[in-house]
Amino acid sequence: MTGRSDQSKTQAQPRRLGQLRADQVGDAISASSILVLPVGAVEQHGPHLPLNTDLVIATECAEALIASKGDQLDLWLMEPLAYTKSNEHAGSPGTVWLGPETMLRLLDDIGRSLAATAAKKLVFLNGHGGNSSLLNVACRELRLHHGLQTFLAHPSLPPDQGGKSDSPEHNSDAHDELGMGIHAGWGETSMMLHLRPDLVDMNAAGRAVPEHLAENSHVRFGGTTTFGWLASDFGPTGVIGDPTGATAEAGRKLFAHAVDQLSEAVEEVAAFRFR
Amino acid sequence: MTGRSDQSKTQAQPRRLGQLRADQVGDAISASSILVLPVGAVEQHGPHLPLNTDLVIATECAEALIASKGDQLDLWLMEPLAYTKSNEHAGSPGTVWLGPETMLRLLDDIGRSLAATAAKKLVFLNGHGGNSSLLNVACRELRLHHGLQTFLAHPSLPPDQGGKSDSPEHNSDAHDELGMGIHAGWGETSMMLHLRPDLVDMNAAGRAVPEHLAENSHVRFGGTTTFGWLASDFGPTGVIGDPTGATAEAGRKLFAHAVDQLSEAVEEVAAFRFR
Amino acid sequence: MTGRSDQSKTQAQPRRLGQLRADQVGDAISASSILVLPVGAVEQHGPHLPLNTDLVIATECAEALIASKGDQLDLWLMEPLAYTKSNEHAGSPGTVWLGPETMLRLLDDIGRSLAATAAKKLVFLNGHGGNSSLLNVACRELRLHHGLQTFLAHPSLPPDQGGKSDSPEHNSDAHDELGMGIHAGWGETSMMLHLRPDLVDMNAAGRAVPEHLAENSHVRFGGTTTFGWLASDFGPTGVIGDPTGATAEAGRKLFAHAVDQLSEAVEEVAAFRFR
Amino acid sequence: MTGRSDQSKTQAQPRRLGQLRADQVGDAISASSILVLPVGAVEQHGPHLPLNTDLVIATECAEALIASKGDQLDLWLMEPLAYTKSNEHAGSPGTVWLGPETMLRLLDDIGRSLAATAAKKLVFLNGHGGNSSLLNVACRELRLHHGLQTFLAHPSLPPDQGGKSDSPEHNSDAHDELGMGIHAGWGETSMMLHLRPDLVDMNAAGRAVPEHLAENSHVRFGGTTTFGWLASDFGPTGVIGDPTGATAEAGRKLFAHAVDQLSEAVEEVAAFRFR
Amino acid sequence: MTGRSDQSKTQAQPRRLGQLRADQVGDAISASSILVLPVGAVEQHGPHLPLNTDLVIATECAEALIASKGDQLDLWLMEPLAYTKSNEHAGSPGTVWLGPETMLRLLDDIGRSLAATAAKKLVFLNGHGGNSSLLNVACRELRLHHGLQTFLAHPSLPPDQGGKSDSPEHNSDAHDELGMGIHAGWGETSMMLHLRPDLVDMNAAGRAVPEHLAENSHVRFGGTTTFGWLASDFGPTGVIGDPTGATAEAGRKLFAHAVDQLSEAVEEVAAFRFR
Amino acid sequence: MTGRSDQSKTQAQPRRLGQLRADQVGDAISASSILVLPVGAVEQHGPHLPLNTDLVIATECAEALIASKGDQLDLWLMEPLAYTKSNEHAGSPGTVWLGPETMLRLLDDIGRSLAATAAKKLVFLNGHGGNSSLLNVACRELRLHHGLQTFLAHPSLPPDQGGKSDSPEHNSDAHDELGMGIHAGWGETSMMLHLRPDLVDMNAAGRAVPEHLAENSHVRFGGTTTFGWLASDFGPTGVIGDPTGATAEAGRKLFAHAVDQLSEAVEEVAAFRFR
Repeated sequence: MTGRSDQSKTQAQPRRLGQLRADQVGDAISASSILVLPVGAVEQHGPHLPLNTDLVIATECAEALIASKGDQLDLWLMEPLAYTKSNEHAGSPGTVWLGPETMLRLLDDIGRSLAATAAKKLVFLNGHGGNSSLLNVACRELRLHHGLQTFLAHPSLPPDQGGKSDSPEHNSDAHDELGMGIHAGWGETSMMLHLRPDLVDMNAAGRAVPEHLAENSHVRFGGTTTFGWLASDFGPTGVIGDPTGATAEAGRKLFAHAVDQLSEAVEEVAAFRFR
Repeated sequence: MTGRSDQSKTQAQPRRLGQLRADQVGDAISASSILVLPVGAVEQHGPHLPLNTDLVIATECAEALIASKGDQLDLWLMEPLAYTKSNEHAGSPGTVWLGPETMLRLLDDIGRSLAATAAKKLVFLNGHGGNSSLLNVACRELRLHHGLQTFLAHPSLPPDQGGKSDSPEHNSDAHDELGMGIHAGWGETSMMLHLRPDLVDMNAAGRAVPEHLAENSHVRFGGTTTFGWLASDFGPTGVIGDPTGATAEAGRKLFAHAVDQLSEAVEEVAAFRFR
Repeated sequence: MTGRSDQSKTQAQPRRLGQLRADQVGDAISASSILVLPVGAVEQHGPHLPLNTDLVIATECAEALIASKGDQLDLWLMEPLAYTKSNEHAGSPGTVWLGPETMLRLLDDIGRSLAATAAKKLVFLNGHGGNSSLLNVACRELRLHHGLQTFLAHPSLPPDQGGKSDSPEHNSDAHDELGMGIHAGWGETSMMLHLRPDLVDMNAAGRAVPEHLAENSHVRFGGTTTFGWLASDFGPTGVIGDPTGATAEAGRKLFAHAVDQLSEAVEEVAAFRFR
Repeated sequence: MTGRSDQSKTQAQPRRLGQLRADQVGDAISASSILVLPVGAVEQHGPHLPLNTDLVIATECAEALIASKGDQLDLWLMEPLAYTKSNEHAGSPGTVWLGPETMLRLLDDIGRSLAATAAKKLVFLNGHGGNSSLLNVACRELRLHHGLQTFLAHPSLPPDQGGKSDSPEHNSDAHDELGMGIHAGWGETSMMLHLRPDLVDMNAAGRAVPEHLAENSHVRFGGTTTFGWLASDFGPTGVIGDPTGATAEAGRKLFAHAVDQLSEAVEEVAAFRFR
Repeated sequence: MTGRSDQSKTQAQPRRLGQLRADQVGDAISASSILVLPVGAVEQHGPHLPLNTDLVIATECAEALIASKGDQLDLWLMEPLAYTKSNEHAGSPGTVWLGPETMLRLLDDIGRSLAATAAKKLVFLNGHGGNSSLLNVACRELRLHHGLQTFLAHPSLPPDQGGKSDSPEHNSDAHDELGMGIHAGWGETSMMLHLRPDLVDMNAAGRAVPEHLAENSHVRFGGTTTFGWLASDFGPTGVIGDPTGATAEAGRKLFAHAVDQLSEAVEEVAAFRFR
Repeated sequence: MTGRSDQSKTQAQPRRLGQLRADQVGDAISASSILVLPVGAVEQHGPHLPLNTDLVIATECAEALIASKGDQLDLWLMEPLAYTKSNEHAGSPGTVWLGPETMLRLLDDIGRSLAATAAKKLVFLNGHGGNSSLLNVACRELRLHHGLQTFLAHPSLPPDQGGKSDSPEHNSDAHDELGMGIHAGWGETSMMLHLRPDLVDMNAAGRAVPEHLAENSHVRFGGTTTFGWLASDFGPTGVIGDPTGATAEAGRKLFAHAVDQLSEAVEEVAAFRFR
């Protein structure tokens, strides 16, 4: 009963906004500072990945980003949002889903709060594709209501938002997801095998690709015509993709690539001006 | 003072849901029917295009779609939404902007209502890019709350959502928008020159491209990292793009292409099944 | 696939707010301008009238009003609201009903937006009696929140709000509605026979008058004591009234009378001052 | 320090819903019972009437109604609502105003609660004209959401809702209000001189009639065209009417007439059926 | 049919805010004034106490407080709130329960209104323990939003909020409630026997103490660990406590004690400053 | 750029709900399971404690609780809530404050989600006193809406909720807080010196006790009469208490005591039944 005040914990980590004392905020946070808010999820991720997959990935990417670019770009890591808009998994035990009004209010309250600091820029580092549309809405709301410059970045752009389903240079082991590695597929699974192998059960991993959608030119993930879907529309596991070829080594490369891309993106955020 | 009951009006147009009598609804609308809801906007569109540009384009595309594919695909045109989430133009006189909560409630009420018919599929045909994220959110809400299959299609996919800023095969007269024909640019202006030249003033058309954003790899329209913006962030006219090379002939081709693409997309909607 | 850019469309109609270009708004709209917002409905209107009856009537009246008085009184026609508070028909297939909170928010957002123009006066031209109470509420809200002067006018005052159920001078063919031509009755049906005979099926028209209410002195439509009712309380068709004697000629007179009365009313609106 | 447990209080008053014990509710309240909810206001009533004028009038009418008709018609008096939608007096010190959303939620919660009893009918006995539109909205909401039959009655119908501004047979002393005894005028003042003369200061009573509105045919109180107004639009006192000729004797007659009319109305409520 | 304008009523009671005329408010209410808002409830109170028990107690305490300290401390009694957050009795016929959002909005609107007076201090005199948490939330909201100094006092502190279940010096007749006289127990019943014996039926009074909870050190009423409960969790009558030993004489003492304590508390309110 | 997949991380921690895979939830979570949700805050904690103080304390207590009692009592640790109702510090840079409606919606969505598991009991382990009232409200809401048994526990009961301001047996070094160690005082500071000394700056710690409140019998923290306060009402630092005597050793004892008490409380939660 000693608390987690072990050695490794008693070193304050740099650039954690929440670890600042109130009277440090004025010095630490200036108009050049960029606040980074990891946005995760706690939701069904197939039988092989943990509920907190998106939270792990968003947080690990954010921490790596801070480690590599924090000082250079004046980044500040915020406490993550664990519970978000996971309503495509509504009803799945273990999933915690917020409705869009709840999430909009939550983000608006956070934005209003952050506007009380000197920082002008806020990056949502979002690990859950189901949040992206709402976060885009919120980016504008926070700009309009609170004057913040707001950005939405992803560890990797979801395939239904223009991203690739897998990364060709790493995917020799991957089975073709037909561009539909939306949820708990090869990429996410590989990343988790790298980041938290203890939480992954590859024996349970199974392919669940709605292959008939690949025949569509428009109405498919990443097509010109989006559609409202629930995980249960596609099957009981929540998987959309094929995790069976995932490896930790692929995950290592994907993670490194993600952090590289995020670093580049946040460099652009730092330099960003509207005109 | 005779009303608009002129000859051209006294022919009921086919496949207008609003023109059905209540006791026709049961026969006309079945599980195979697809409801098409044009979503427009009334908002600042630069000095050269009318406020209702998005409403005109969405409605004209929808009508052409019904004309070409209505009988084949059992499409039903709904009365359009004129006033939508135009809050990137908030404060601009003549713009009517709904907040996201208002728009979500509006769409949810509409979805709840439509679920009382036998139709199972609803297509938002959205002419205003500022609505897309929220409509994506609503697509899921209506699926979750009311069991509808919901789809979001655009006359042409906005450049900040993966679409091209202009259509290369038609753009010999276009000045390069650097992928940023977001609002009141070459494409929209050309379409309006085709559809409603009476409402366009090309003398007022001017280039307004935030060229420095083209240097970004991530933080740009259509990049991996989106950002919250207001029209006024970029300049007073609301234009983001270059309408100066727009022509009616290019508009004719763009419109025809849009309707072709929408027709293909809605064919896929008609055949759509989750598994 | 040419769009509706036919000849008759390429003439911009005068005094359409939505057809203005943003830079015209400043010149066109001044403190003397009166904005006219037609408020319709898409709802069950008996077996003989189309769902969009109220939308047709409100829009046609508004257009006739603009045509006759637009220049004199500086009127500006807005895009109509098609979907409104039709919840007395909730559950009837084809009806689209907004809840009162949704409609209040919608109207408040519109009012907030219009207050960004120089116009000071807004007229709701409401074709759906089920909206009247809420529009009265909204008139005050928009005055309080946004400083607009707001007015609520009807093509003809609904019988449950002090209007006559039919117009005695035209009603030789009408069967007595006992003051209860609330919905899809003689007046509305006659107007539609004038305005859109193509959409009316008089063979399906049937009398549905809750005659026993006529015996009441207080608790009846237009009595001192109002009551909450749903269309289904009175019967399956949604009709409350007797459309069987409706004629296009009566409709022509009713429409002309409505436009005359609205013209007079809007003249008073133009001259209106509180003190 | 004895409490108000004086003799006159220790007799339970009959037919007070709030004075029932929970296990009496089942026997006392049946499907034939009519619940009567007085709706008052606490708001500016000119310099001569107390803030709680509408509460006093609604409550006294309700009590007289229960006394005269309670047993015959199975009426049950509820605790009144003192604070309601007085937002036309927003900002006036002493006025307590609820916004319409607050009031709608309040009424909906009350309706949902009452639907747990066996009663089927609820009468709002409303003393504040500013509530009428919203109560009409609520009447339908409670019918739709909770299945209650709902009724809205007034001590006397406000002039802006079709009522007379004064009662001709009693008004020999009244100065002509030109149909505009909307607030704190002859009728209300006379009633208060009868009911609570201790709270009235006739020396402060002054005429405040917006006489120019009487010239209007449409845009006037009770005309075909309503308008959004705030008390402050007309002047600082909140009076719209002419209380100067008010007398207790006229108030006595008006009160008796109001109770007679309400009694008649509630008899019709008791017998009411939709078909 | 004369109204309740009997002799005893025609004396205006002093220090009733609602009985002021609007032009008296400026003189009567100053920065030193303290507004007192009784907060009652209409809810199941066992088989032996009336639904309005909390309203009676809160109102009687408030009136006694005004009588004893009103002039000294510049207190002003407001019209009580009868319907409040009674949702632990949701579904019990006769109970009127507001949800927390409704009640928060209601209180916020009231606070916003009162901030328009010169008064700086508002005391909620709350008779219903189920309101306490929400009133604490509202106290802060009104301070934050409207600048009011807000206070929450009780006739006697509920046992689940640190109060004693009974008052040892008076309880020779009381049966031990084991600290659980939460609702309709010895104290409340005694007070009602003093204040409104006509409304109490001691024959129906029965002990309902969840005795097993007394064995808990933490998870019990007034323990360190609170819990969400509904009245129906404990039994059908809503009683939590033991009213069987209640007497009017004990009630007289409890009431006197309550008023004494409230008087002391409000003296401190009058002198209160933050620093 | 390797991610935090270091050795210490690759051991899944037991009894983390978020670390379960979806198909483990059914086996792991049963009707006997108790979900533990740490509720922290990110808010001004004086010049000497970090913003995330409450989050650290709630999380560390929860982890210690799981470690000691998790297996015995079938406890499951949830991802904490970092951002909560800190609106008493609204406007303080670095504080993130949710409004009560946002927080209620958030908690309701979480409760609705958790009700999809087999668990019946949810414990809020709340480190931020400003949340307590709202959490009490939410405990009932979640019971009513979702059927969960809900509990609210604290590391140590806040002094304004009946707890002691310091723990006499440990406080030989403490300066007397007069029962007002509400925020960033001796106890919290000592705990943080134990748990995260790296984040504490004792040089900045200063006494800020509103001593005059100690003279009050009622209107003081923990008195019978609560009041709405903002941190800024008492001074600029947000401190209410006296941290100057805080020590790590006292913190060690306080932490151990807190975990002991929580363990006892949760044992009672495990055995809890309403009757």
